[in-house]
Amino acid sequence: MSPEIKGASLPKPLRGVFPPMITPLLAPDRLDAAGVERLVEHILAGGVNGLFILGTTGEGPGLSYRLRRELIDRTCRQVAGRVPVLVGISDTAFGESVDLAVHACKAGAQAAAVAPPYYFDASQAELLGYFERLASALPIPLYLYNAPSYTGLFLRVDTVRRAAQIPGVLGIKDSSSNMIYFHSLLHAMRDRPDFTLLVGPEELMAEAVLLGGHGGMCGGANMCPELYVSLYQAAARADLPEVNRLHERVMQISTTVYHVTGDDSAYVAGMKCAVSLLGICGDTMAEPFRAFGAAEREQVRRHLMAAGLRPLGERA
Amino acid sequence: MSPEIKGASLPKPLRGVFPPMITPLLAPDRLDAAGVERLVEHILAGGVNGLFILGTTGEGPGLSYRLRRELIDRTCRQVAGRVPVLVGISDTAFGESVDLAVHACKAGAQAAAVAPPYYFDASQAELLGYFERLASALPIPLYLYNAPSYTGLFLRVDTVRRAAQIPGVLGIKDSSSNMIYFHSLLHAMRDRPDFTLLVGPEELMAEAVLLGGHGGMCGGANMCPELYVSLYQAAARADLPEVNRLHERVMQISTTVYHVTGDDSAYVAGMKCAVSLLGICGDTMAEPFRAFGAAEREQVRRHLMAAGLRPLGERA
Amino acid sequence: MSPEIKGASLPKPLRGVFPPMITPLLAPDRLDAAGVERLVEHILAGGVNGLFILGTTGEGPGLSYRLRRELIDRTCRQVAGRVPVLVGISDTAFGESVDLAVHACKAGAQAAAVAPPYYFDASQAELLGYFERLASALPIPLYLYNAPSYTGLFLRVDTVRRAAQIPGVLGIKDSSSNMIYFHSLLHAMRDRPDFTLLVGPEELMAEAVLLGGHGGMCGGANMCPELYVSLYQAAARADLPEVNRLHERVMQISTTVYHVTGDDSAYVAGMKCAVSLLGICGDTMAEPFRAFGAAEREQVRRHLMAAGLRPLGERA
Amino acid sequence: MSPEIKGASLPKPLRGVFPPMITPLLAPDRLDAAGVERLVEHILAGGVNGLFILGTTGEGPGLSYRLRRELIDRTCRQVAGRVPVLVGISDTAFGESVDLAVHACKAGAQAAAVAPPYYFDASQAELLGYFERLASALPIPLYLYNAPSYTGLFLRVDTVRRAAQIPGVLGIKDSSSNMIYFHSLLHAMRDRPDFTLLVGPEELMAEAVLLGGHGGMCGGANMCPELYVSLYQAAARADLPEVNRLHERVMQISTTVYHVTGDDSAYVAGMKCAVSLLGICGDTMAEPFRAFGAAEREQVRRHLMAAGLRPLGERA
Repeated sequence: MSPEIKGASLPKPLRGVFPPMITPLLAPDRLDAAGVERLVEHILAGGVNGLFILGTTGEGPGLSYRLRRELIDRTCRQVAGRVPVLVGISDTAFGESVDLAVHACKAGAQAAAVAPPYYFDASQAELLGYFERLASALPIPLYLYNAPSYTGLFLRVDTVRRAAQIPGVLGIKDSSSNMIYFHSLLHAMRDRPDFTLLVGPEELMAEAVLLGGHGGMCGGANMCPELYVSLYQAAARADLPEVNRLHERVMQISTTVYHVTGDDSAYVAGMKCAVSLLGICGDTMAEPFRAFGAAEREQVRRHLMAAGLRPLGERA
Repeated sequence: MSPEIKGASLPKPLRGVFPPMITPLLAPDRLDAAGVERLVEHILAGGVNGLFILGTTGEGPGLSYRLRRELIDRTCRQVAGRVPVLVGISDTAFGESVDLAVHACKAGAQAAAVAPPYYFDASQAELLGYFERLASALPIPLYLYNAPSYTGLFLRVDTVRRAAQIPGVLGIKDSSSNMIYFHSLLHAMRDRPDFTLLVGPEELMAEAVLLGGHGGMCGGANMCPELYVSLYQAAARADLPEVNRLHERVMQISTTVYHVTGDDSAYVAGMKCAVSLLGICGDTMAEPFRAFGAAEREQVRRHLMAAGLRPLGERA
Repeated sequence: MSPEIKGASLPKPLRGVFPPMITPLLAPDRLDAAGVERLVEHILAGGVNGLFILGTTGEGPGLSYRLRRELIDRTCRQVAGRVPVLVGISDTAFGESVDLAVHACKAGAQAAAVAPPYYFDASQAELLGYFERLASALPIPLYLYNAPSYTGLFLRVDTVRRAAQIPGVLGIKDSSSNMIYFHSLLHAMRDRPDFTLLVGPEELMAEAVLLGGHGGMCGGANMCPELYVSLYQAAARADLPEVNRLHERVMQISTTVYHVTGDDSAYVAGMKCAVSLLGICGDTMAEPFRAFGAAEREQVRRHLMAAGLRPLGERA
Repeated sequence: MSPEIKGASLPKPLRGVFPPMITPLLAPDRLDAAGVERLVEHILAGGVNGLFILGTTGEGPGLSYRLRRELIDRTCRQVAGRVPVLVGISDTAFGESVDLAVHACKAGAQAAAVAPPYYFDASQAELLGYFERLASALPIPLYLYNAPSYTGLFLRVDTVRRAAQIPGVLGIKDSSSNMIYFHSLLHAMRDRPDFTLLVGPEELMAEAVLLGGHGGMCGGANMCPELYVSLYQAAARADLPEVNRLHERVMQISTTVYHVTGDDSAYVAGMKCAVSLLGICGDTMAEPFRAFGAAEREQVRRHLMAAGLRPLGERA
């Protein structure tokens, strides 16, 4: 497929909520196929604008390649074209990233997302060359993913600006949590209204959209997609009272469900536990992590109740 | 003065724009007294809600104690009670912080602001104890200052929540640039509407205020205070189109004037150079920094023109 | 193979020099098979005590799995049991690490080495559990690899002490460059003389061995293995004048050949360039890196001459 | 005094052990004058080669200026020229550093030591300019102090090499704990045998001296100076068995006495507690820290016994 037509069917920019789907597992290396089906339907029912699999929330780098391919296949089959599917292909090995994107393309995914390779420290010039070679090797368009707390590398504004000129590079998802950086990106790309600028953390989507960003990923959409979709829509139509009301709920979830332990894994473990309490799929984690025990699970259950989300078996 | 009545005259919370004033110098250790007078008038003419001296932008920790005291005296005299004056007393030595606050109180300043001591690494419990002992030793109320990039220490949400119960601790200025943290603070303090939550970086004031924060510091207010005051007011009245228009100007200044060199000192040096080009005071820096040379100065001049700020000698 | 007899043939502790072999490539994803043969012979001729492939110096995480397996096969065949072969299996995906170790075992490798998974931040308890499950899944013994600058995670002394009790965990390679940590490890493990403690950076091998460590990896052994072997031996026999003479040569190489550019990749790129200048194999780098250009290559050539290493075509 | 003769009486390089003296306090801001006398005599009795006051171990940046001056006066009077006294003048304010050095010179101190200013981030060029202006303003010679974990700034090898050409800059104390850096310094300065290269952490002194360094600071010398002096001497005469025996004792102290709590302050608090248990002075800490409670004190007491140091009231 030529670069010119890669991604022809995708909105430019992408706008709205693109949940980073957790990966339902029966065992650390065994996919929960029925869970995938239920989770996809749960998320899509919330009115999201796309689905992002194999990202950080999806424990992508922690899954075997066999499982990653199976997840791509089952997700694309279940989504069946209702919304675009973006596939995380971040890897330390270039060839594995390309192979995964080729597989994703065949399965019907619309685009790939890639963070910088996360073992060796690469310079900005090295990263730019990497994005050029990667984009030209892919059969689907590419979104950059700035995730410094995971990769140890920061995509500078100037690097993004130059990468935006590579055919097939359509946008960036920024998970730096640094809104000065995000605003600098928006400012630097103001002459490229087609280039997608999404923010990773759900806690920052409201302000990102209020001030010109195109949307967000919102991991919490695995639990309650309609909350984040409503927040996006309120922000997009500048309904500030509603934005504040919904943002407050987002913060309530974020400050409780994602911090049941002090470990960094508490975010994904809390999310998986919550989705499990909602009856959608199990809470098995990929290595090197473990699902919450009973005490933590009870805390999550209470946090969900407090947030107005009803765990299975609880009365309204 | 008893803790009960410390800060009785201050609004709770403080709301609006409280510029961190640069320190006009004739030489690295010699105050530009006339420059202080002109700068105070320039800033106050913009309609700001208070003045913050001896902060990071004011190069506070880089100034000799003699000069810090002189600046306090001259600023308070010039302000003459028109707005509250907050004085930065951050120091690695407890006694010096207290002495400076006592001096500030006598000079008529309304409050002190303090970052954690920035040489030794202190635990959150040690910091809480420090704030307790410091607040009880001060004759004026205290605002906390979270400045992790300068101090290497982060004030955790729970630490702030507990510090907020110390008599005389009235609020916090957060310069972490981490808006998830700022929103978490807002969420944690939602039952304490009297506790002031200000954001440091001017690039983040719009969203901070739109989503419940009380205002910001806005270093750029040394150059053009009315821009930041207007932005605050637009955000406070939820006028989103105006917020976006003014925020775009803020970003234009931020991405140009503050980044003429790659050094971290480029922010203060660029600001001082700009204020000097506007004819308000000179651009001398405190040690260990140096004012821009002719080439950088010319760049700042052009950036100011592009931002619609007119350097002296330029035609409208 | 049962844990009890895993690694039965390995010295406990391992002692000496275990070079982290660079990976000879014809293209970023194509192995230089003849180069592998020449390089193995070149290194073994220097009298090293083992060979470590697919580590950081070997660009392990940057290579496709197909290529990693091919390198394992060819290296083990070429070494043919003359020294132990250790294989890096560090990966973010548990299953891929296990598969690689199984392959390595079949190919005749003696042991695996693993750094913590390097995308997600894991707690010390999570890492310990990971090492337990990994070691029990492997057919060969395991050496831990502390590489905080690459993984963002630090293996605490207490974690290593507890990991040392896992069957099949035989030692650690520490590349933290923090000798206080290394000495603390030595002190903590003084009742476990069988547990191997190797230091990664060649610049630190002399002192590590002088003060009780068992040896080092020494990337420079790709160029001139006998230098590092001689240094190890001098340190092991406490010949301090000789240690100082050889250590000075080590520092001369380190401060020149590995720092031709300011990028972090300059270490591996400089090493590969040097080995190429010595006529052993080409200097192709794996993605996302590129081989040096002519100017950098000329600098490396001069550095080699200055260090007494003769590039091809240079007269003695 | 002209730069040419500054430091004329000091050995070049300084060699041996220069303990960073803790500051005996009766209260956080009140010097324990009798304690200073006893501590100076205790340390000097161990045969040290100089004394370093107001460093990190001395809580220098945490003390009021009045107290710093009093400590300088009393220490110099007590030492009475028996060994050189080096005074830490690290400060964020240039003028305060100069004033302190002038005071130290009048009191009879031989030299000053300075870390980079530790609030603002300065570039290497800015630091070099700072050292130039500082050295020329001081009446006594200057030793640089590389303390990245406290200052957030790293003195690059090239910066040190250039600073070594400033009149009055006589050496560096490196507390980075990075021995690759220390060896790179030694290598870069091999044509300047007069330039002093000391290592900060006592755990690294053995190897520093074995491989060409000139000595160390050794905080533990506040407790048992003769241990570190003996270790230095054994290393200087290349007596490796004795080095290993003494280094093992150093590690035993380091891994116990300095880590009774997990806080960073545990190093100084543990040291002060130990010196107090030895009957030399009290354990009061400067703000923002607190002396150990009874439980921690009991742990330190046991650690001292295990290390063969006899607390007061314990039988031999």
